[in-house]
Amino acid sequence: MITPLFYDELTVHTQSHDYPIVITESTIGKNSAGKDSSEISNMAAQVTPYIHGQQVLIVTNETVAPLYLQPLQDQLAEQFTVAVCVLADGEQYKNQASINQIYDVLMAQHFNRDVTLIALGGGVVGDMTGFAAASFMRGVNFIQIPTTVLSQVDSSVGGKTGINHPQGKNMIGAFWQPQMVLADMSTLRTLPARELSAGLAEVIKYALIMDVDFLTWLEQNLPAMLALDLAILGEAVKRCCQYKADIVAQDERESGIRAILNFGHTFGHVIETHEGYGNWLHGEAVAAGMVQAAELSQKLGWLSLDDVARIKRVLTLAKLPITPPPIAIDTALNLMGHDKKVKQGQIRLILLKSLGDAVLTADFDESLLIDVLSQHTQ
Amino acid sequence: MITPLFYDELTVHTQSHDYPIVITESTIGKNSAGKDSSEISNMAAQVTPYIHGQQVLIVTNETVAPLYLQPLQDQLAEQFTVAVCVLADGEQYKNQASINQIYDVLMAQHFNRDVTLIALGGGVVGDMTGFAAASFMRGVNFIQIPTTVLSQVDSSVGGKTGINHPQGKNMIGAFWQPQMVLADMSTLRTLPARELSAGLAEVIKYALIMDVDFLTWLEQNLPAMLALDLAILGEAVKRCCQYKADIVAQDERESGIRAILNFGHTFGHVIETHEGYGNWLHGEAVAAGMVQAAELSQKLGWLSLDDVARIKRVLTLAKLPITPPPIAIDTALNLMGHDKKVKQGQIRLILLKSLGDAVLTADFDESLLIDVLSQHTQ
Repeated sequence: MITPLFYDELTVHTQSHDYPIVITESTIGKNSAGKDSSEISNMAAQVTPYIHGQQVLIVTNETVAPLYLQPLQDQLAEQFTVAVCVLADGEQYKNQASINQIYDVLMAQHFNRDVTLIALGGGVVGDMTGFAAASFMRGVNFIQIPTTVLSQVDSSVGGKTGINHPQGKNMIGAFWQPQMVLADMSTLRTLPARELSAGLAEVIKYALIMDVDFLTWLEQNLPAMLALDLAILGEAVKRCCQYKADIVAQDERESGIRAILNFGHTFGHVIETHEGYGNWLHGEAVAAGMVQAAELSQKLGWLSLDDVARIKRVLTLAKLPITPPPIAIDTALNLMGHDKKVKQGQIRLILLKSLGDAVLTADFDESLLIDVLSQHTQ
Repeated sequence: MITPLFYDELTVHTQSHDYPIVITESTIGKNSAGKDSSEISNMAAQVTPYIHGQQVLIVTNETVAPLYLQPLQDQLAEQFTVAVCVLADGEQYKNQASINQIYDVLMAQHFNRDVTLIALGGGVVGDMTGFAAASFMRGVNFIQIPTTVLSQVDSSVGGKTGINHPQGKNMIGAFWQPQMVLADMSTLRTLPARELSAGLAEVIKYALIMDVDFLTWLEQNLPAMLALDLAILGEAVKRCCQYKADIVAQDERESGIRAILNFGHTFGHVIETHEGYGNWLHGEAVAAGMVQAAELSQKLGWLSLDDVARIKRVLTLAKLPITPPPIAIDTALNLMGHDKKVKQGQIRLILLKSLGDAVLTADFDESLLIDVLSQHTQ
């Protein structure tokens, strides 16, 4: 095992247990040094202390498997009984059929409550593996190895797991906490540029809802992040995980403050659902959604026009869309009615009181919401 | 609302929250007094204080719906938005397709996190409604109205919810606690005699694992229970719920003592799986399974032959089977390998150290287990 270039760790406190997020770098996967995988991989070594029992199921997808599965599988197999479930790649496969694939492998292997599931992939793999872990035999252990910026800063922290229903995103799921999260920044080397940018939407989100100083830091460092400076990316991931861990510790089941993490998401869900899962990436939809939420905040007098322009600039710097696709207002309002943040028919949104300060509110005139939506109607 | 003939209540303590089990009697459903349902039903009044929000989904099945659905639905509709999901009746429908039916109604109604699901029916309806509640929007409230002895004493207490996998019973699920349980003993008037007996298997189980005095009480009172003396049945249900509540409070997630509630169930699962779900009722399989577990306990020198004979007598008094169907030994051992109580390949069983004292153990010679299984092989 080589010494990582950097290593950092933080602890997430939850009702069920505390768990670590390890942020590090290795030389797993494709490399130019000509070393064999047993010399250069340390993913297996990082996760091994968190595997209890003898049974491991690695869940990944068709895109990630050729890049990172084999060395992880081979090394874990030296110590554990290891099975693999390779799912189709994409948000459109975040459904019951994929969950059933996972169950079927677990049953075929005669795995039991001692099994540890390992999610190797992005947010979709993580959410589905987590839900399978939450529901197999009423709950078994799992570990996250997120391989995208989005999943490193968002879906791997906080225990939200689940799948989509044909009529709505993330409608089926559970709160279920992992045993550990390994954010191996090296995996970002193989991430398509479009997905890197999509992940940065969630990074920017943390700045907008929690810390205007971090917004300034991002304005300076986004170019280095896009150029795959893994140390800078690791610093950003750690800060985002810490923001999220702090919020989750206060409000694990989203009865209050945790909702602000959904800034831009209600607008974003409309885009994703309307355009069909997978056509707009989640982070792209959130980026355009954050602009809409900012515009509504500006109409309420909370943000200045300069603030809105600054938000658009930083998103553009991250190569993200700032304009939603044309969607009829009635359609958008109807799709918002399926969002989990609707309380008794009233649409509630996360808006910005100022840059770095978000609030969940239903206290706005619907005509202002319609104004924002109509800016982008055909 | 008429005054119930009897009313009793106990509290279940769990990690997430405490909830009451109300054991009472009403004159809901079919009656000979000629009163209209709004005068005579009190199910709705009992559950109303535990419904938060405005949305209610009643989940029931094709057998129970004609008996009890309409008055409950009509009375709740005076105060709430009420939707209904009527599932097919039977263990063979305890599957993902039925859960999807529940999700589909919830989505079609645009129900959200404020919804309360009400399970009106036996254990299958309760387990599925509970799992749907655990997984819809990552968890919503639910209330149990168990209409069988089995569900009143067993599945409605303790928060185990779930469905079957084609390769094993209850393999998919969650721990999820209801807001309250209403055990309305009047519903037992319409319970088929065979199902009443099947439920009594679980009642007898509590005596065998926890309280030999309760065994004596049952030997005296089983005839009255079979003759539908609701006050005596109510007393038995209350005692069983209290036994279970005490155990669940100690060990909600079955890491230790809770496992003893599965006395007879590992053997019973073999019977149910081999014979096909629904051909042997769960309680019937547990009855024959408890005899097998008792026989193994006797071979270990823990029970006397008289103890085993006493167990067979009390089960026979409750009109329950005491002999499993013929199943090949290899088949039985293989099916036991899929049970959740298997740890690292070792079959663990709940056995009796004495009448009223159960233990989870792998400390027996497999040849003795094979002896027990072979007594009933063809």
